[in-house]
Amino acid sequence: MATEVKATNITWHEGSVSRAEREKLLNQKGVTVWMTGLSASGKSTIACILEQMLLHEKKHAYRLDGDNVRHELNKNLGFSAEDRAENIRRIGEVAKLFADAGVIAITSFISPYVKDRDAVRANLKAGEFVEVYVKVSLEAAEKRDPKGLYKKARAGQLKGFTGIDDPYEAPEKAEIVIDTEVVPPEGAARQILDYLEKGGYLTA
Amino acid sequence: MATEVKATNITWHEGSVSRAEREKLLNQKGVTVWMTGLSASGKSTIACILEQMLLHEKKHAYRLDGDNVRHELNKNLGFSAEDRAENIRRIGEVAKLFADAGVIAITSFISPYVKDRDAVRANLKAGEFVEVYVKVSLEAAEKRDPKGLYKKARAGQLKGFTGIDDPYEAPEKAEIVIDTEVVPPEGAARQILDYLEKGGYLTA
Repeated sequence: MATEVKATNITWHEGSVSRAEREKLLNQKGVTVWMTGLSASGKSTIACILEQMLLHEKKHAYRLDGDNVRHELNKNLGFSAEDRAENIRRIGEVAKLFADAGVIAITSFISPYVKDRDAVRANLKAGEFVEVYVKVSLEAAEKRDPKGLYKKARAGQLKGFTGIDDPYEAPEKAEIVIDTEVVPPEGAARQILDYLEKGGYLTA
Repeated sequence: MATEVKATNITWHEGSVSRAEREKLLNQKGVTVWMTGLSASGKSTIACILEQMLLHEKKHAYRLDGDNVRHELNKNLGFSAEDRAENIRRIGEVAKLFADAGVIAITSFISPYVKDRDAVRANLKAGEFVEVYVKVSLEAAEKRDPKGLYKKARAGQLKGFTGIDDPYEAPEKAEIVIDTEVVPPEGAARQILDYLEKGGYLTA
């Protein structure tokens, strides 16, 4: 066992460890980096590279996406407008817990509605919600279509697909806008990393 | 700005940062320390001291309790058997995300039903769920009654109160059992800390 528990002769105070103490331990600030954009816009690719860049800087980040949220915490939700709203609400609450824990939470969901995203923003403190609009034209997204989802949606095999028969409401006040038809994924991730660095999130 | 972003000339691989990489960064293993016991058993007090002890060891822990979960993520749940089950399910899913992030999650909820707790256990990997039975007799809990809840329940002002008119099902296979009528909170927290140390959770 490498770590030996050394705590002795210490008086433990009443109450809990503060967020500031956790942030000091990690030398970073808790924040939610909220990526929004059409399917195939490049959200996940950028999120993965950002996660790697943050690890390289010895920063503690965690990615929330369809795999670990939609199929677990939110597996009892469908795709009605009500369930979509509850899906985003829960993701926002979890991101808030991670931010409170001092972690850099990176969420990667289409999150098409302004109302739902703004509700998450309103639930967090100023500066704790960094909205990243991963911008792509519908035409370019359909051309990429790595999972063949647009094709299925056009064929009527997928209903309520964002961009086809359900709206995508682009952010008007996103902290970061990335046009993925111009900027490659690595450049996009670096743009977010720079924002976090300049904003003082990578120190405590 | 203390932290300068140094990442240059690095090729970023496909795919995401692994749990092992996060654990190595933090030098600890992600785990859920699940405290269960009657109201006034001492769960929160012990959880707070444990959190402080872990911080002192430079370990990253996060406490999930009524304040940051019941009133936020789970604010749309009531106290029916179904809602209680969903409450514990969601807490378990969030704890799982924290464990996956490499964090030591400490949950502090009465969580009275074996079935609900075992469902959380089954959803985590072996060794990832450390159940701590914070044991106290109903008599002693009622005598403590710091929030006057037992008094209200006895007076019929609180319905479905665990121990009074709703059952508490004690764990039979808890990893740690603490009798809080004998062991003071600091000793209890140290007992959990020792378990984590011996189990290799405080290194990666």
